[in-house]
Amino acid sequence: MKATIERAILLKGLSHVQSVVERRNTIPILSNVLIEARADGTLRLMATDLDLQIDESVAAAVDQPGATTVSAHTLFDIARKLPEGAQVELSAAEGRMAIVAGRARFSLATLPRDDFPIIAEGELPTTFELPAETLKQIIDKARFAISTEETRYYLNGIFLHVSDDPQPVLKAAATDGHRLARVTVPRPDGAEGMPDVIIPRKCVGELRKLLDEIDGSVGVSLSNTKIRFDLGQAVLTSKLIDGTFPDYSRVIPTGNDKILKIDPRSFEEGVDRVSTIATEKTRAVKMALDKDKITLSVTSPENGTAAEEVPGDYSSLAFEIGFNSRYLLDILGQLEGDLIEVHLADAAAPTLIRENDKAPALYVLMPMRV
Amino acid sequence: MKATIERAILLKGLSHVQSVVERRNTIPILSNVLIEARADGTLRLMATDLDLQIDESVAAAVDQPGATTVSAHTLFDIARKLPEGAQVELSAAEGRMAIVAGRARFSLATLPRDDFPIIAEGELPTTFELPAETLKQIIDKARFAISTEETRYYLNGIFLHVSDDPQPVLKAAATDGHRLARVTVPRPDGAEGMPDVIIPRKCVGELRKLLDEIDGSVGVSLSNTKIRFDLGQAVLTSKLIDGTFPDYSRVIPTGNDKILKIDPRSFEEGVDRVSTIATEKTRAVKMALDKDKITLSVTSPENGTAAEEVPGDYSSLAFEIGFNSRYLLDILGQLEGDLIEVHLADAAAPTLIRENDKAPALYVLMPMRV
Repeated sequence: MKATIERAILLKGLSHVQSVVERRNTIPILSNVLIEARADGTLRLMATDLDLQIDESVAAAVDQPGATTVSAHTLFDIARKLPEGAQVELSAAEGRMAIVAGRARFSLATLPRDDFPIIAEGELPTTFELPAETLKQIIDKARFAISTEETRYYLNGIFLHVSDDPQPVLKAAATDGHRLARVTVPRPDGAEGMPDVIIPRKCVGELRKLLDEIDGSVGVSLSNTKIRFDLGQAVLTSKLIDGTFPDYSRVIPTGNDKILKIDPRSFEEGVDRVSTIATEKTRAVKMALDKDKITLSVTSPENGTAAEEVPGDYSSLAFEIGFNSRYLLDILGQLEGDLIEVHLADAAAPTLIRENDKAPALYVLMPMRV
Repeated sequence: MKATIERAILLKGLSHVQSVVERRNTIPILSNVLIEARADGTLRLMATDLDLQIDESVAAAVDQPGATTVSAHTLFDIARKLPEGAQVELSAAEGRMAIVAGRARFSLATLPRDDFPIIAEGELPTTFELPAETLKQIIDKARFAISTEETRYYLNGIFLHVSDDPQPVLKAAATDGHRLARVTVPRPDGAEGMPDVIIPRKCVGELRKLLDEIDGSVGVSLSNTKIRFDLGQAVLTSKLIDGTFPDYSRVIPTGNDKILKIDPRSFEEGVDRVSTIATEKTRAVKMALDKDKITLSVTSPENGTAAEEVPGDYSSLAFEIGFNSRYLLDILGQLEGDLIEVHLADAAAPTLIRENDKAPALYVLMPMRV
């Protein structure tokens, strides 16, 4: 193979690709990017970790079609350090790939392209389009709640499913058992009858990065084992998590009758300030609700105490409840508007937080004993 | 004590102070900042790690003079999170300090001010002034060469001494045995006869941060065991390293007769690019010198090879020499101008690098076998 490509184009393609490649691999070829120069004047860059695969095509002047694989991180670092505007010549022969740009020459060891594992997509019967903005919103509002507990692997992703309640909707949910995020958007054409799927955290992260560079729509195709995202020049394919997401709708409280309406920014800043005192061990912030007044407080045996009053619209019975301040801040960070709704029942019951009943996102937070 | 201070002023003072305080301390009071409200309308903030002490005075409205100590990092975090423009009321009584700003209230545990250790400066017979710009230059050009090897504690700082060779000068040197940096500036009035001193790395780092906020001059006072820097509202006092700095002038080569003149930017970028291939184990970059041409190359058994030609002005005998690319980049990063001088002897001899013979800074780099 032999091709010439502009440094900026190569760098951008490699930046997507190298982030799929794990830093440490026991199988050497998984450290490599597959580079294929094609007669149609494109350079194909592919990387995989066996669960997630990225396949990107960029414009290049192809002298001689062909393919090879080289270290993704090394090639990315080289492209990064080449001067702006450089033309980069890539050529492969006899187990080496030569990279020439200006006065700089590199020779990298290659591994045969035939050894490069490709994820077999199989049939992807469900196909629909989602505006990139909608997909960004789903990810941003839900991903922080994804569990990192590896033993509960079925919670290590975003659960996507359709439902008719009563409108046809697409729902995304994530939970770690302490908090739950659910985002509901209108069901796109073609998503009817789709299987319930759990998209792994890493796929969610890579997809989110790629979405920053995209306008318009993203093509989504899926079966009950694989999902593919078509993002123009890049295609992301991922295995789905093979597990059953718990029936999360049961933990969404419907009868919480104590309603607090509060400015999310004052609430967030107050929680952030009082939790300065909190330590790793004592993350709990206490909320004392009283007529139109919330008192946030933290007590730490080591550090001292902190308290702040935040005005709010509240007229139910006075009571106290505790939350993990980190979890509460994660949720408040996603909420906009002048007033949000906090639906409470008692100090031991899950609490529901949302902007209002029209908002696509809804959060449930378990209390902590304080 | 009771005093009110503007949040921005408190925050700036605490930002200086908290960075002297170590994150982990076996002696609890070393985690604290001494806060003293004085009748003259200043708040004194002090912190120490027993080797380095900062003493800063900031403007405050003092209602009741007095002093106490509280956790420096906690107070800093609180000040950071308080709203911009807030007035912060600090008051201490009965083993607690109360911090009130707007609707937020904090209560922190205190430790008695009398237990707070103060570094006894003793007599500081040598006193001179240095422009802040000169002091910045000395630190920036020398600090990267400071050794981090704790067993060679006498290299863990910048060596400062005066000399008459033949002009009266003040010299600063740092070395880790592989590279040496020396900066020479005119001897300030009052520095004649000063003892040779080694300023510890941490003091150098804190001083450099404070210098960013200073114009004009810095007062330097020292004995053979302590040094004090007067930076307007802040005073930094440090113990000196009790050891003997090696006679570094012997390693500065004077007879290197192969002179390369080269653009430091092309040289730096070339070294940076070819060293992409280098690994932690093989940091060596090879320089092959030939008539007006330098070829930089790196060979890594794991990654491959890299080479780049850089034009340079060279007319001595062709030969090859190797350097640690990281060390070479550190030095090149400090050099300015269109052409720098590299004085070489042979592949095993220390190499001298400088902008020109008038430049205040001079570097010596030991070669590596390649």
